[in-house]
Amino acid sequence: MLSSAEPCHDVAHLGHVELLTDKPQDSLDFFVTIFGLTESGREGDSVYLRAFDDYEYHTLKLTAADTTGMRHVGYRCASPQALSRRVAAIEALGAGIGWSDGDLGHGPAYRFRDPDDHVFEIYYETQRYQPPASEKPALKNQAQRFPARGVATRRLDHFNLLATDVGAIRDFLPQALGSRVTEQIVLDSGTVVGCWFTINNKSYDVAYGRDSTGTHGRLHHVTYAVDQREHILQAADIFLDNGIFIEAGPHKHAIQQTFFLYVFEPAGNRIELANAGARLILAPDWPTVTWTEEERGRGQAWGLKVPESFYTHATPPVGRG
Amino acid sequence: MLSSAEPCHDVAHLGHVELLTDKPQDSLDFFVTIFGLTESGREGDSVYLRAFDDYEYHTLKLTAADTTGMRHVGYRCASPQALSRRVAAIEALGAGIGWSDGDLGHGPAYRFRDPDDHVFEIYYETQRYQPPASEKPALKNQAQRFPARGVATRRLDHFNLLATDVGAIRDFLPQALGSRVTEQIVLDSGTVVGCWFTINNKSYDVAYGRDSTGTHGRLHHVTYAVDQREHILQAADIFLDNGIFIEAGPHKHAIQQTFFLYVFEPAGNRIELANAGARLILAPDWPTVTWTEEERGRGQAWGLKVPESFYTHATPPVGRG
Amino acid sequence: MLSSAEPCHDVAHLGHVELLTDKPQDSLDFFVTIFGLTESGREGDSVYLRAFDDYEYHTLKLTAADTTGMRHVGYRCASPQALSRRVAAIEALGAGIGWSDGDLGHGPAYRFRDPDDHVFEIYYETQRYQPPASEKPALKNQAQRFPARGVATRRLDHFNLLATDVGAIRDFLPQALGSRVTEQIVLDSGTVVGCWFTINNKSYDVAYGRDSTGTHGRLHHVTYAVDQREHILQAADIFLDNGIFIEAGPHKHAIQQTFFLYVFEPAGNRIELANAGARLILAPDWPTVTWTEEERGRGQAWGLKVPESFYTHATPPVGRG
Amino acid sequence: MLSSAEPCHDVAHLGHVELLTDKPQDSLDFFVTIFGLTESGREGDSVYLRAFDDYEYHTLKLTAADTTGMRHVGYRCASPQALSRRVAAIEALGAGIGWSDGDLGHGPAYRFRDPDDHVFEIYYETQRYQPPASEKPALKNQAQRFPARGVATRRLDHFNLLATDVGAIRDFLPQALGSRVTEQIVLDSGTVVGCWFTINNKSYDVAYGRDSTGTHGRLHHVTYAVDQREHILQAADIFLDNGIFIEAGPHKHAIQQTFFLYVFEPAGNRIELANAGARLILAPDWPTVTWTEEERGRGQAWGLKVPESFYTHATPPVGRG
Repeated sequence: MLSSAEPCHDVAHLGHVELLTDKPQDSLDFFVTIFGLTESGREGDSVYLRAFDDYEYHTLKLTAADTTGMRHVGYRCASPQALSRRVAAIEALGAGIGWSDGDLGHGPAYRFRDPDDHVFEIYYETQRYQPPASEKPALKNQAQRFPARGVATRRLDHFNLLATDVGAIRDFLPQALGSRVTEQIVLDSGTVVGCWFTINNKSYDVAYGRDSTGTHGRLHHVTYAVDQREHILQAADIFLDNGIFIEAGPHKHAIQQTFFLYVFEPAGNRIELANAGARLILAPDWPTVTWTEEERGRGQAWGLKVPESFYTHATPPVGRG
Repeated sequence: MLSSAEPCHDVAHLGHVELLTDKPQDSLDFFVTIFGLTESGREGDSVYLRAFDDYEYHTLKLTAADTTGMRHVGYRCASPQALSRRVAAIEALGAGIGWSDGDLGHGPAYRFRDPDDHVFEIYYETQRYQPPASEKPALKNQAQRFPARGVATRRLDHFNLLATDVGAIRDFLPQALGSRVTEQIVLDSGTVVGCWFTINNKSYDVAYGRDSTGTHGRLHHVTYAVDQREHILQAADIFLDNGIFIEAGPHKHAIQQTFFLYVFEPAGNRIELANAGARLILAPDWPTVTWTEEERGRGQAWGLKVPESFYTHATPPVGRG
Repeated sequence: MLSSAEPCHDVAHLGHVELLTDKPQDSLDFFVTIFGLTESGREGDSVYLRAFDDYEYHTLKLTAADTTGMRHVGYRCASPQALSRRVAAIEALGAGIGWSDGDLGHGPAYRFRDPDDHVFEIYYETQRYQPPASEKPALKNQAQRFPARGVATRRLDHFNLLATDVGAIRDFLPQALGSRVTEQIVLDSGTVVGCWFTINNKSYDVAYGRDSTGTHGRLHHVTYAVDQREHILQAADIFLDNGIFIEAGPHKHAIQQTFFLYVFEPAGNRIELANAGARLILAPDWPTVTWTEEERGRGQAWGLKVPESFYTHATPPVGRG
Repeated sequence: MLSSAEPCHDVAHLGHVELLTDKPQDSLDFFVTIFGLTESGREGDSVYLRAFDDYEYHTLKLTAADTTGMRHVGYRCASPQALSRRVAAIEALGAGIGWSDGDLGHGPAYRFRDPDDHVFEIYYETQRYQPPASEKPALKNQAQRFPARGVATRRLDHFNLLATDVGAIRDFLPQALGSRVTEQIVLDSGTVVGCWFTINNKSYDVAYGRDSTGTHGRLHHVTYAVDQREHILQAADIFLDNGIFIEAGPHKHAIQQTFFLYVFEPAGNRIELANAGARLILAPDWPTVTWTEEERGRGQAWGLKVPESFYTHATPPVGRG
């Protein structure tokens, strides 16, 4: 059936991540003063944040809680009709939770669970960011003035979750969101232990790795993009001077070739800075790149072996969620 | 009618440009030795070239001729069905030329003319580049080893044409290809003199400027992307040492914010190197950014005034095409 | 006499520049908030500033006045004996003014005039910068934490003066300070109109250009260095967003090959950001590079022609000093 | 005695390193094709190489031998008189070997041994590199055109040796060459296990680490500088694609803050690429920075732990020299 082969463009892009913190003031200080995000507003236990090129009201909802990790993630659909089509598809998968009235910054959202119990929502109506006078950019094709404070964070890039069964996710996301699998890691046994998905021309907007603890619903990291690799090197110095723990990098991933740096924000959530260079997935029929155990054993692109914590630490820590 | 508002994704990406040269050996030396492209093959009067991250057989078809300029440009569709839909739409516009059997590197292509007589083609079937052993990359998610020869050119980015009536193009391309207008320049008189279009998440894949000479079908420039702005600074030194004329840059465009460098290849075609940083058009409903005469009068982002030649030189030169 | 050929190392490095401003608060805001300097202290009408890698108490003394320009420049000698030798040499030249008790940040200084009436001082005793707790760097081999505020300014680099007779300066500075002439511009008539001097391994610490207005004692610009060329590109965006006038650049000088950006601080003094890459003058017998009129006519390295103001604007403006 | 405190400037800069290889053709291919050096000439078993900004005839003498490591290192003095003074000082230390007639590229040289039996030579007369027409640079203040082939290596930067008694070296080099100790590692026991020396404004031109095998005269690495950190990131990709073993990096040293990348050339000699940003040692009385065991335990600047081989591998390997 040829028509089934057509790429799906119902979902436009990753919209926002809601991150939980049990050190809300420290986390907020980190994201604003060091990480370079800007506050859009507050409501209840949450502060809404964004990077200077994020066009929506927010891309990070930072919520005070008694734990850490990701409460939900939002994707913006391409049109009202596309939203309807996705809701129907997700309901058919039996994964739906139902509609919410929306949030600061966006309209009605339909929530569902992935097979590992992470909560997703999809929405169409959104609120474009309107900068106050002090944040008006000199160039009108940019959402906000570059803050020139801390890290040169430009926009939300992707997020990374853990799942006990990555293979189930690989089946689910293409049906739920219309995602494509751009790269994956398959063990010699045939088990999928890593999977990278995209719903547009970015090489990935979400990746999953295996949660070997058997826990469900955990977050590995949230990633923002910077314009140049040099901005990641600068960021490393800023993190160092501010006592932010650097877990790994700067280095280049073999998978997806992203230049990266991983740190822990004060509450323990892993945050990544990334630069993909000019790399895009333009081919409509991009064949999934599969990495073997042996290939993964070589480490990152230039040989770095990430520390053991990269395979064990996620939020919330086991036993706390 | 809501459904008409849905973004069109029938065309996946810009595929290749056929560039004419009346100094074929000099142009080829430039593109391979200085500009960093790699030859895929030859046929007739043409040499097929590509950058290391271009996944298709070629992105530049360099053809010996008695003139310069662009003979045709190719876009790849997202599926066979999408190709059929676009052909039908273009035929309905009365712009069609007809089918060709394809070329080295791709299958059947449907040709048409834009309102200024530039020749476009759309196709779906393509030939993925297969690197010989000496060009096999260390990382399997990349088409070819980085040549480390001359400029660090990564992939085809966009092209720029002149037209006597840019407003007509602004009406035509969204209907023909499903393009979106991301930015434009509108004079106080209401005349559109510049227009930037995209059919995916890149901020633009083609731009048009006004041809004040009244000539039709001319090329302003073809652009390749590099990963980092620093690679453009390096390229400027390489061009300087090799006697390649630098027309303008490196500098940053106000429109689209692209970091750029313009040179003339030996036959006189203008070639651009560009870096967009992490900038993407992710919003499915990106509102066209309109620049006024007064705003354009401020020059490029950081104040550079491009030389007069930027507004007058195009290929072929007037009177030769 | 062979011994006369030995390089002189009595003067170690450029120490500080005293800059006059008739808009003291605006200038101070610029230097601290936008330009990334840090205040060390205040006394009288002056605020003392430095970049994060400057090891002395200050490198910029910003003094409120009814005019602009440079009140004096200080060089640090290599030892007390070296200071004595230089004082003797300067007195022998008849250029001496006499001793001062020093200033915030350094000990006794001997003042003199160059042939164009600019005031220099040389000193040895200095006060190393002691960062307060909030500015302590993570790495103990650095004077201060990187502020991550505005431009990534690292250290004072050089300054540039105008003189009615540059040839007289070319004779004077090697005798007064032991400077070497690394590059110069000599017109076809034999007149020296530009001269670059160094007293260490930097390619230059001071340059002179011809003041065609016949005025004496004017400042062309003061320059700070950043670590990477990318930091200058970032700075251009920061200046743009903050309404700071960009006069020229970013671009690469043909002379000395420095990557540069020129802006005017709010009071009108021209300030440069520069990056020299890994370029150093290591040869003890570096032969002066002489540029001809014809060579200078080619513009900067990649072809930029600086605006007319670059040849006419200096501080104080003519008729105000 | 105050005069003894004056900095010594008799030695101008590191001149060249003679590197031994038992895979001469592979090593030469590496240095020219991948590492970006240019051949100046050949004589006997040696090929003379240099980077594009090295002003002398050569900075690397690559000599075929039955082992690896460094045969000798050369420093250029500031004047004939300075050379005489250094010879006298070295003879007084009892370390002298005697005069040689020089080599391709430089005049008479006086050889001596450091306390660990590494062979040094000092010379004054040198041969400036004269580029053939094909290597003439566009800018006359540069020794040679940028090759744009492989890595963007700019100039020789420093070298690093092992010694069984680093403390003895710390005493010797300041007396022999007039070097200053800019940084050092001192164990809690008081033993010096690392020491960085400079004879000019570079932060170091030679470093020593402890050879825990008790072997004498070994080489840890030779380092060339590139202009920008981005060039080191590019180099890592070039090494990866060409099968060159990357031992560690790219990362930033805590000591001296150099951005670095270590590889093994085909015969096993460790080669480093480095970028120091705008960092210079301008202070004539720079106080030695001493790092403790605890501080060194934190790894490199951003937390990288270099692999065990970094502490064990040197050339020649133990038992072969």
